[in-house]
Amino acid sequence: MKIIKYPSREQWADLIRRPQIDTTQLHATVSSILSEVKAHGDDAVRKYEEQFDHAQLHTLAITEAEMEEAERLVSDDLKAAIVLAHRNIAKFHEAQQFESHKIETCEGVECWQKSVAIEKVGLYIPGGTAPLFSTVLMLATPAKIAGCRQIVLCTPPNREGKVNPAILVAARVAGVSHVFKAGGVQAIGAMAYGTESIPRVYKIFGPGNQYVMAAKQLVSLHDTAIDMPAGPSEVCVVADASSDAEFVAADLLSQAEHGIDSQVFLITTSEEMLQKVTEQVDVQLAALPRKEIAQQSLNNSIFVLVRDEAEAMDLSNAYAPEHLIIATSDYERLAEKVVNAGSVFLGRWACESAGDYASGTNHTLPTHQYALAYNGVNLDSFNRKITFQHLSEAGIGSIGHAVACMAENEQLEAHAQAMRIRMSKLGLR
Amino acid sequence: MKIIKYPSREQWADLIRRPQIDTTQLHATVSSILSEVKAHGDDAVRKYEEQFDHAQLHTLAITEAEMEEAERLVSDDLKAAIVLAHRNIAKFHEAQQFESHKIETCEGVECWQKSVAIEKVGLYIPGGTAPLFSTVLMLATPAKIAGCRQIVLCTPPNREGKVNPAILVAARVAGVSHVFKAGGVQAIGAMAYGTESIPRVYKIFGPGNQYVMAAKQLVSLHDTAIDMPAGPSEVCVVADASSDAEFVAADLLSQAEHGIDSQVFLITTSEEMLQKVTEQVDVQLAALPRKEIAQQSLNNSIFVLVRDEAEAMDLSNAYAPEHLIIATSDYERLAEKVVNAGSVFLGRWACESAGDYASGTNHTLPTHQYALAYNGVNLDSFNRKITFQHLSEAGIGSIGHAVACMAENEQLEAHAQAMRIRMSKLGLR
Repeated sequence: MKIIKYPSREQWADLIRRPQIDTTQLHATVSSILSEVKAHGDDAVRKYEEQFDHAQLHTLAITEAEMEEAERLVSDDLKAAIVLAHRNIAKFHEAQQFESHKIETCEGVECWQKSVAIEKVGLYIPGGTAPLFSTVLMLATPAKIAGCRQIVLCTPPNREGKVNPAILVAARVAGVSHVFKAGGVQAIGAMAYGTESIPRVYKIFGPGNQYVMAAKQLVSLHDTAIDMPAGPSEVCVVADASSDAEFVAADLLSQAEHGIDSQVFLITTSEEMLQKVTEQVDVQLAALPRKEIAQQSLNNSIFVLVRDEAEAMDLSNAYAPEHLIIATSDYERLAEKVVNAGSVFLGRWACESAGDYASGTNHTLPTHQYALAYNGVNLDSFNRKITFQHLSEAGIGSIGHAVACMAENEQLEAHAQAMRIRMSKLGLR
Repeated sequence: MKIIKYPSREQWADLIRRPQIDTTQLHATVSSILSEVKAHGDDAVRKYEEQFDHAQLHTLAITEAEMEEAERLVSDDLKAAIVLAHRNIAKFHEAQQFESHKIETCEGVECWQKSVAIEKVGLYIPGGTAPLFSTVLMLATPAKIAGCRQIVLCTPPNREGKVNPAILVAARVAGVSHVFKAGGVQAIGAMAYGTESIPRVYKIFGPGNQYVMAAKQLVSLHDTAIDMPAGPSEVCVVADASSDAEFVAADLLSQAEHGIDSQVFLITTSEEMLQKVTEQVDVQLAALPRKEIAQQSLNNSIFVLVRDEAEAMDLSNAYAPEHLIIATSDYERLAEKVVNAGSVFLGRWACESAGDYASGTNHTLPTHQYALAYNGVNLDSFNRKITFQHLSEAGIGSIGHAVACMAENEQLEAHAQAMRIRMSKLGLR
């Protein structure tokens, strides 16, 4: 790790800089796969599944028999954990339901918002070594609560053409309508354009490698909304002399194991804590199965000693982390100062893993400083707030003249006329 | 206009198809301007202002003297209209304030959302013949209510280096921090990267021509969030025998005058109403100053006669219009059936102009069928909902085992360990 003591504010820009990710170099490759899928549908998806996932597929849809097989393969312990996590995620996202109320902005003019679910959404769940069934819960649970009519999930099969059973169990628990064996760019294309098997959706959610991200960005230019741009996962821990060094080290390592590009950032006001965490990281690292990955990620991690709490929070806000753990005893006061972060974990017991899996908050969060402008996935991500308005005759009296005057001054005479024709019907001018 | 009577559902896809807008052809040109602005800041902005707006600028920032001059130039009548519109827009968007409440998802686990304003936002207001001061109100008012610390506005000057005074008055009324003379791609680049004069912002809002749209899309791939993708403006009017043909025709024309690519769509259950509206359009068109534009747009407009109300609303939802006017007497019942639309106007008095200017709803809305997945600008557009969580010792007991079990099954051992280390401190397993 890089240990930096009392950096000046001028040095901050270097400390918080993320590695550049430029997926535009991939655009040519990704575009050609997308075009193939648009033109040839299922045939193209099957071709790329063979090429990239080495799976020969006859049908793309998961069958009821495969669902039942998955239920048998997943242990009762894991099933119970999935059900518990789903319950908490559902509870937190149900509490985000929007209550509409009408506002009379002036006499005779009523305006309101109504939250309406996006009819068709697509969830992408990557394959690979770590089967992210937790992400199935994080995306499908709010989609179901929002009332999305069609919830489509694509995930790549293994060489035997099988999908990880925990993904299928999580999909059933959370209420996914249709699961398909498709990964990578071909899955994103299939959900953006629709194929014979895979329905077109209006918004695509979920993580993926750089090809998947590039595909999501490309389809978002024309056809389909996406949840948010993404980069490597990140944690920032703010610690002081009251923090538990063992816990802090464990939290930093849990981020470091994600991948060699994971971002691990420690900010502390205590030189002694800095020393203790550094030692604990070494101790705990030795015992980890993914220690090579964690070690590489730690080599790029940054541990910063700052003068006081105010500086700690300013630096954290400048960094704008995906996950922020405030591991101090007076976390409540510091929490008030958070301006830029995806999800914030307060106190010594709130480890990032809690929110990654089962506390109820969403783990699909803005990385790569996107927290400056984006929030994580929540119930709103699956809804649109449509505005409605009703005017009575009195409403024309209230705003008619102002509307006509503004329209004339914008040189939009027909806009003015649409109001004036109503005013004259009511004898107003 | 194209009049289509009782089309089959198979024909709908053709009726609702929008003109293709492919800004990717512009990407090379737009990219090179963006790169210049990134590299050369104010000098590049000044260079392109001279090239595209034929304005020689020394300073880009609007001065206090220019603000005062604008106040003198705008009539009292228009000022009063701007103040009235601002008051209604503020009232509607203030009512969208988010109230945070803590949710105990299970014993000892508390989760909540907090709405925090994006610190720096940029508003783009196009120049040209129609000075869109109304859009200043629509963007700056909610930005101010959200609490954005810096609200930057860029708008192109005319050949004399002047900005339309109504734009400046609206900016002052709505609380814009800084106004700059910059238009087009160079303005978007300046706000995305920052220059010596123009601050970098985290999210850019506002309409523009295809170059501006392409620039917004390109910066959104890397640096800066944007409000939404955009296409030509649209209205869909649903009318029956109870509608007022004069009003309906006026509403269709107010959309048609926007530009030759404006989309005008009438759905009616009454053949007589179809006839009457067609006649009224001709009568009213003759009196419009922008009749050439409106005529061209009307040539591409579509008037559809359908069998019944249910079919009318199904077709409207398939079209997913930016603006939907339900001009029937039983609008309340039909409003319940709206699934895809940006903003909905109910009853004979609620003309689109009302919402375009002064009723209080926002007029920055999803066009081009983006209403399938996006909503218009609202207070949330200027905020992020950051999630927070706190766990007590009891919380570790509630979810600790589930978290460790799920993490192990995702082969993320350090994630499991971060929870287990806490469980063992509490003597839990």
